[in-house]
Amino acid sequence: MTVPLTLLSEHRCFGGTTAFYKHASEACGGEMRFGVYVPPQAATRKVPVLYYLAGLTCTEETFLMKGGAQRVAAELGLMLVAPDTSPRGAGFPGETDSWDFGVGAGFYVDATQAPWSSRYRMFTYVTKELPELVGAHLPARMDREGLFGHSMGGHGALVCALRQPGRYRSVSAFAPISAPMQSPWGHKAFGGYLGPDQEKWREWDASELMRKQRAPLPPLLVDQGTKDKFLTEQLRPELFQDACAAAGQSLTLRKQEGYDHGYYFVSTFMEDHLRHHAATLNA
Amino acid sequence: MTVPLTLLSEHRCFGGTTAFYKHASEACGGEMRFGVYVPPQAATRKVPVLYYLAGLTCTEETFLMKGGAQRVAAELGLMLVAPDTSPRGAGFPGETDSWDFGVGAGFYVDATQAPWSSRYRMFTYVTKELPELVGAHLPARMDREGLFGHSMGGHGALVCALRQPGRYRSVSAFAPISAPMQSPWGHKAFGGYLGPDQEKWREWDASELMRKQRAPLPPLLVDQGTKDKFLTEQLRPELFQDACAAAGQSLTLRKQEGYDHGYYFVSTFMEDHLRHHAATLNA
Repeated sequence: MTVPLTLLSEHRCFGGTTAFYKHASEACGGEMRFGVYVPPQAATRKVPVLYYLAGLTCTEETFLMKGGAQRVAAELGLMLVAPDTSPRGAGFPGETDSWDFGVGAGFYVDATQAPWSSRYRMFTYVTKELPELVGAHLPARMDREGLFGHSMGGHGALVCALRQPGRYRSVSAFAPISAPMQSPWGHKAFGGYLGPDQEKWREWDASELMRKQRAPLPPLLVDQGTKDKFLTEQLRPELFQDACAAAGQSLTLRKQEGYDHGYYFVSTFMEDHLRHHAATLNA
Repeated sequence: MTVPLTLLSEHRCFGGTTAFYKHASEACGGEMRFGVYVPPQAATRKVPVLYYLAGLTCTEETFLMKGGAQRVAAELGLMLVAPDTSPRGAGFPGETDSWDFGVGAGFYVDATQAPWSSRYRMFTYVTKELPELVGAHLPARMDREGLFGHSMGGHGALVCALRQPGRYRSVSAFAPISAPMQSPWGHKAFGGYLGPDQEKWREWDASELMRKQRAPLPPLLVDQGTKDKFLTEQLRPELFQDACAAAGQSLTLRKQEGYDHGYYFVSTFMEDHLRHHAATLNA
């Protein structure tokens, strides 16, 4: 049986519609929300779907409100789908104590440690449950999926793609947490969600997964600001770049001079990313 | 003596810089904040300056974060200046009780009623004090000023221009409160800031001012969504349209089918407005 969606709001935008929905989630054991941009082309045909995974503290609204993506998506005929960044309201102890763990910080993993394992299953949510809902309710071509994200969501995009080679036709990231096992954010999140055994963490680290990969991903585009205050301690794109080189993976890593970590950076290069995705999604 | 600015943050954005400042304000009797986008062209020459007045509940960040204007301003070489929507922290009784009066709702008037008259002087702030700061500290051509705004800020833009014919080279608005004396928002704000004598209100009502104007404003562009929930009770663009017709004022009022009141609407038509301003600011 198809899970119903409840429309929360919809807004005409660049000739298409930005809308927000909530629904019961089996993966996350409660209500989840997501945003979507349906471009004008979807009035007459199904369109490719591009998922965007947002960063720490963000919600399903952040990208659609601040990313400046709808203008270009309307031109290119891409549907944009933006999930929330974690379950909310589970009420677990410590869930809202910090901005980099728990609410707003699901890290796109399936937690294995109690109590998180009963609800913090964002990998299953964004790769399985959410696409099924999109395919059932929206005019999306489910044979043409792309994936990108920012910071924690850049990590999520790379990991989701690396764990499912062949699935996503296009992948990119803004300032991703490129090697979470080598970053304080990753240690905190993986330790809490996955437990102390670091061998288990390797399955959720983009640089580790890249070193083990058999099938190449589509050519990757990564933008990284040089004045990003998280660059050297948390993001570490050079480790992912090394892993791509070792694996023979095509990667375009662009160092953007003077740019920081926020949406003034993300929005500046959004058009480039959407055209990168459209090149294969619309091919 | 030039009042100093304190830089709160700055962010590289579309080759220029989005920055936020605070400063002591004489007009508003306390600290005020504003945001600015300095386009790349300002590295080598002074550029025209376009002020944006935001709507109820907004801050100096709203437009620069949600408006999608920097991309086009970078192309056209326009500086964008976005003040806050009221003084904050005055501590007057009732100041934060409602979202349509007091904090976040200065209505771009100079209040005459105590206690508001000591600090809620947003007209003087946005037309005199803020431009002086911009001219003193930023690479702005002060002989080339444009002005636009949204909702309460659309009212503000029209009124500021009508009270100073000849000053602004370009004027436009998104969903302005076009005849505040005929709207509940206007009655509440004008009653509180200006007192019960409605004769005094006429000096702050765009439709009333337009009927009395002697010198024409530059050709006006107004966009209004047809699904804006505030359209018929609060905004009433038809009254301003009638006033423009009676005064012989050039007005392009575009009814945008299906669009609502928010930034998904504003951002859709932002490029048109910036090109409207650039046509005279860059001429």
